[in-house]
Amino acid sequence: MSEAAKAPLFFKVVTVEEARHRVLEALGVSPARRVEELALEECVGRVLAVDLVAPEDVPGFPRSTVDGYAVRAQDTFGASESLPAYLVLAGELRVGEAPQKPLGEGECMAVATGGALPEGADAVVMLEHTETPGDGTVAVMRPASPGENLVLPGEDVRAGQVVVPRGRVLRPPDLGVAAALGYTRLPVFARPRVAILSTGDELVPPEERPGPGRVRDVNAYALAAAVRGEGGLPRLLGIVPDDRRALDRALQEGLEADCVIVSGGSSVGARDLVAGAIAALGQPGVLVHGVAIRPGKPVIAAVARGKPVYGLPGHPVSALVTFYLLVRPVIRYLAGADPFPVEPTVRARLARNLASRAGVEEYVRVYLSREDGGLVAHPVLGKSGLISTLARAWGLVRIPAEATGLPEGEEVEVVPIPPL
Amino acid sequence: MSEAAKAPLFFKVVTVEEARHRVLEALGVSPARRVEELALEECVGRVLAVDLVAPEDVPGFPRSTVDGYAVRAQDTFGASESLPAYLVLAGELRVGEAPQKPLGEGECMAVATGGALPEGADAVVMLEHTETPGDGTVAVMRPASPGENLVLPGEDVRAGQVVVPRGRVLRPPDLGVAAALGYTRLPVFARPRVAILSTGDELVPPEERPGPGRVRDVNAYALAAAVRGEGGLPRLLGIVPDDRRALDRALQEGLEADCVIVSGGSSVGARDLVAGAIAALGQPGVLVHGVAIRPGKPVIAAVARGKPVYGLPGHPVSALVTFYLLVRPVIRYLAGADPFPVEPTVRARLARNLASRAGVEEYVRVYLSREDGGLVAHPVLGKSGLISTLARAWGLVRIPAEATGLPEGEEVEVVPIPPL
Repeated sequence: MSEAAKAPLFFKVVTVEEARHRVLEALGVSPARRVEELALEECVGRVLAVDLVAPEDVPGFPRSTVDGYAVRAQDTFGASESLPAYLVLAGELRVGEAPQKPLGEGECMAVATGGALPEGADAVVMLEHTETPGDGTVAVMRPASPGENLVLPGEDVRAGQVVVPRGRVLRPPDLGVAAALGYTRLPVFARPRVAILSTGDELVPPEERPGPGRVRDVNAYALAAAVRGEGGLPRLLGIVPDDRRALDRALQEGLEADCVIVSGGSSVGARDLVAGAIAALGQPGVLVHGVAIRPGKPVIAAVARGKPVYGLPGHPVSALVTFYLLVRPVIRYLAGADPFPVEPTVRARLARNLASRAGVEEYVRVYLSREDGGLVAHPVLGKSGLISTLARAWGLVRIPAEATGLPEGEEVEVVPIPPL
Repeated sequence: MSEAAKAPLFFKVVTVEEARHRVLEALGVSPARRVEELALEECVGRVLAVDLVAPEDVPGFPRSTVDGYAVRAQDTFGASESLPAYLVLAGELRVGEAPQKPLGEGECMAVATGGALPEGADAVVMLEHTETPGDGTVAVMRPASPGENLVLPGEDVRAGQVVVPRGRVLRPPDLGVAAALGYTRLPVFARPRVAILSTGDELVPPEERPGPGRVRDVNAYALAAAVRGEGGLPRLLGIVPDDRRALDRALQEGLEADCVIVSGGSSVGARDLVAGAIAALGQPGVLVHGVAIRPGKPVIAAVARGKPVYGLPGHPVSALVTFYLLVRPVIRYLAGADPFPVEPTVRARLARNLASRAGVEEYVRVYLSREDGGLVAHPVLGKSGLISTLARAWGLVRIPAEATGLPEGEEVEVVPIPPL
């Protein structure tokens, strides 16, 4: 057995933060990311691959933001309800048309919201502050200040300005801005391909009826959906028997993708097998072997050939929790997005005491109920291996490593599954 | 002009809650929803159309949750480190295989996590609480209680039990549970089709260079992306001129979808045109004309031919805010999901005072920064019509109708854009 294959035996359990840091550091500042160009309609949720720069000023012309009259502001100075300024109505500015003539002194022109203002106009008086005596004039009852009720050319966006930064996970408003600037296609990072394999002699694919002593593979489907949710492209490599040569072959195939996740190996023997196979993939090799969290402690994180490789626990609950804590930031990083976005949560009161062990970060599954206008978080009971507890949980409550539990009634932050 | 077409003139401004209620009530308890069957891999984010029932017990056999020895609990009663119970090692239970023989009195069998237990065994002793003297016996240093370290048949899921409820937006753990039960395809509700049209003589499509007085259509793309994010299928019907006959035709085409959104008509005249065209679509017709929010007041909500029809403001910021407040719950409802899910937020301190008008709910766009370990919410400055402010905002802070502002330093809840 090589040195690398033995190494995991000497690893110490680390914190979540340390485990994330080691992998991101080994991946370096800019892992290879492919770029593809997509139609605007396909871009929502994708990661922008460039700083999006405005090719022109927006708006391109001075534009009214209200219904009213385009004026020269100085013609309205001193106007009041008792002593209005009477301006000559010199025309109507139709929305979508260019003004036909400049605005003369003592004149005004009718304009609707969005209409272009003529040369000479520097303010718009709102309709409700005017009267039309019917003699071809408009009575303005309030003074307008220069720049009032209009948007100047380039006031919204200046040519050359970055309007959406590289790395943004594109949201509906970002795509609206891109459309405003004339972009109909955008360069986005290709989704990282994530190979998923399950190990365990007891596993059968979901379409099979498990024989005696066998169970269906849960993790492949749950992890594939989770990968997709984080912007990755899952590639299901199937079930690999608890056999070193089969595992080696499957891992090699997995490394054709951008990231590999192996789940399974819950028993000590199977776990060692997975650890050994991952360690043998090459440098820098295994970076983390054991993370101080519950559920999920026996996690392996490695980097080989510049690609992250994870060995997650076989228990479905542990596999998903460790995925969200450890693998998610790395998939986001490979996807070109911020690995640690701000995480929206909900606040709720604990329905009962939660015990926990000091020195280990615990993640307790909870479901929510609305009571007296507030939310209550109920721990989902049941052994950690029970898959049915997964579907009942709305989210996770974190108990910090230094705590020994949380009392009933305590306000807690619940992170949704999946996190935003 | 028909009575229906005149009706909007008499409508009063209502609250967001009332506006939502009127539309959902008019749609009735079960609008027509189509069901489609998809492969498990395609189901993440889709809405389950049936209660998912377990066809069988899970697990199907008693299963060890640890590495250790299967025992009869009573054989270990009274065992301690100083006086272990010595049991005869009667074999090894391999994971994925059915036990070959029952466990006799005074016997134990080695078992790994996930292994099936033999008849007669009612507990598993963890490896770390045993020693193997090497004489074919196993020394058990602690008593095991019946049921310890194992999962009984059906303890996880009982045949006939509902494991994932109808209406659930399917998440990775739900798909894991479905896989465990042998489902490889699931019936989900078809995405509701949402027709999107933009009105305004000043609009040109994004691929065109706007001529004098013209601007590109922003709302169609922003709303299409927003619809997609809420589980809808956007159908872009393009730009309709400010002309009643063209609008009538476009709305008729829109009603072939399950929901229609018209944006635009910012000027009084254009707004009346849209209001009249929507009112003429049929019963029950316009239900809301004006909502007490800022930005976004001039919103129209109607139901015609059993389908919701919205007239949203032309300002991109107003259009998106009113979409999320009013249209989103209805699209979720049409999609078969809970219209009002629990909404995760982040807590942040206000970077400066926010003024607001009493009697109107205000939604202020903010971006976030991390300072001293906490989050700070900075209002995005700029006139409400500026599209560039959209891309800079991370989320929205709500100022309730009864408030006249919020002070600097106040802790606020920020709803992300888009909301979860």
